[in-house]
Amino acid sequence: MTSPHSNPVTVIGLGPMGTALAEALLKQGHPLTVWNRTPGRAEDLVTKGASLAATVADAVSASPVTIICLKDYETTFGIFDSAGDALKGRVLVNLNSGTPTEARGALDWAAERGAEYLDGAIMVPPPLVGHPESVFLYSGSRDVFDKAGVALASMGDPRFLGSDPGLAVLYNAALLDMMYATMNGFLHATALVGSANVSAVEFAELALGWFMPSVVDSTLAEQAPDLDKGNYPGDLGTMEMNLNALEHITRACVEQGVHSDQPRLMKEIAERAIAEGYSGKNYLAVFEIFKKATQAS
Amino acid sequence: MTSPHSNPVTVIGLGPMGTALAEALLKQGHPLTVWNRTPGRAEDLVTKGASLAATVADAVSASPVTIICLKDYETTFGIFDSAGDALKGRVLVNLNSGTPTEARGALDWAAERGAEYLDGAIMVPPPLVGHPESVFLYSGSRDVFDKAGVALASMGDPRFLGSDPGLAVLYNAALLDMMYATMNGFLHATALVGSANVSAVEFAELALGWFMPSVVDSTLAEQAPDLDKGNYPGDLGTMEMNLNALEHITRACVEQGVHSDQPRLMKEIAERAIAEGYSGKNYLAVFEIFKKATQAS
Repeated sequence: MTSPHSNPVTVIGLGPMGTALAEALLKQGHPLTVWNRTPGRAEDLVTKGASLAATVADAVSASPVTIICLKDYETTFGIFDSAGDALKGRVLVNLNSGTPTEARGALDWAAERGAEYLDGAIMVPPPLVGHPESVFLYSGSRDVFDKAGVALASMGDPRFLGSDPGLAVLYNAALLDMMYATMNGFLHATALVGSANVSAVEFAELALGWFMPSVVDSTLAEQAPDLDKGNYPGDLGTMEMNLNALEHITRACVEQGVHSDQPRLMKEIAERAIAEGYSGKNYLAVFEIFKKATQAS
Repeated sequence: MTSPHSNPVTVIGLGPMGTALAEALLKQGHPLTVWNRTPGRAEDLVTKGASLAATVADAVSASPVTIICLKDYETTFGIFDSAGDALKGRVLVNLNSGTPTEARGALDWAAERGAEYLDGAIMVPPPLVGHPESVFLYSGSRDVFDKAGVALASMGDPRFLGSDPGLAVLYNAALLDMMYATMNGFLHATALVGSANVSAVEFAELALGWFMPSVVDSTLAEQAPDLDKGNYPGDLGTMEMNLNALEHITRACVEQGVHSDQPRLMKEIAERAIAEGYSGKNYLAVFEIFKKATQAS
């Protein structure tokens, strides 16, 4: 069972992402069965060789491994309730997003129905599905991950994160959290220089072409071991100095008439770190603030 | 006047950054004069060949070009007030940080004293000063930039941004704004996975080794031209979908007991974009929100 041709796969849910998954599996040569609430979405895939199942039970019965790409856990549970005994002995790989608690709940839900379960998250947009360097995150049973291995490798670069089924969605939330913060950082900075008629293309050349990879990303990667140790030496720069910079950035935003909530929150977080005793530590000590729940003010 | 040996330079201000600048200039062979409020800071540089001036006036008189590396504009004006006529006909390159308005004010201040003025900002920490790829930003008179060119090239990679003297500090504020947002994004995401005992080193491998350069930075760089056009097509993903993701991230933070102010603000900004009519546009439309001053709520 090591070639795609001898590994039938079922895909449930044919939105843009589910369709991209199905296409990648077909392209690699997997016998493919699909199901979607609106069957019309399957037409193009059927032309390319997929079988359209009439019911979820039929779809799951057609293959040892079923990939689920629906909106959320609620939707998944609702759609599979009709499948009854068909789930018994099958491997379900669930790629919808949600919280770690929901993912752990889905493992129990599958176990009650006799199914083996792997939780996962897709870290690339639909056009990049099927590329060998496109990362997919998985967590739960290593055994189930290995059983589904050939199918998982046909969709991208599968990474197994650990036995807690909540890890894939937690990583997913964290990576998106970082992505939005970075996108907002770039967009807000572009708005700030835009207040003096600098174009986004002009700013991006320096900001993304040089500053981010050379100064920011590489510095953070070098300092990750210190985060694990809680080691924030302030000899090259202190939280106080960083607070000065954040105050100055906030002032520049107000002066230039652009949005200032984002730098103001960063300034408040640095102030919080100082109030908690990190004034002589370096900026990474805000990690200690982030590890604790927000307190009501 | 094209070799460092025939280009004497003066450096005013010997904090960690000023000292790094002075060392880089000495290393390239510039005859160097230095001045610092506390003369003891100059000892090591004098051993390496620098001359220590007794007064600011003597320091400025010793070289056609003076590099200023003090705390802020206020400090600069205070220190140079004693220099009187010595500034006449000299080139001053000011590298302290501040707002665009302050930089424009400094040009007037210098002109009143008969000095030529260039404003600048250093985008690397002291250990990287003197490396040929370390970017220094300058703005103001192109002629003054060219006159100081040999000295500027000895300190790093000088980039001339335009004739508005406020541009260098504005770019500086914007790049730092982006840097802090990105650092906070990584640190907060690391705290989120840390709630399930994932180490920072483990998370950094995926987050900084793959996700940031491959997915985030490159996507932003590709989309910069659309920002300039105000073009945010929602065909691959809408603001509504991104708001769902941000709500989900905020929920995951609360569930895991980590700080949630940062994702909550990002969620509010997406809500604001939807309220202003961008619900069917892609996420980059938050740029339109950032371009406007924060409104009192």
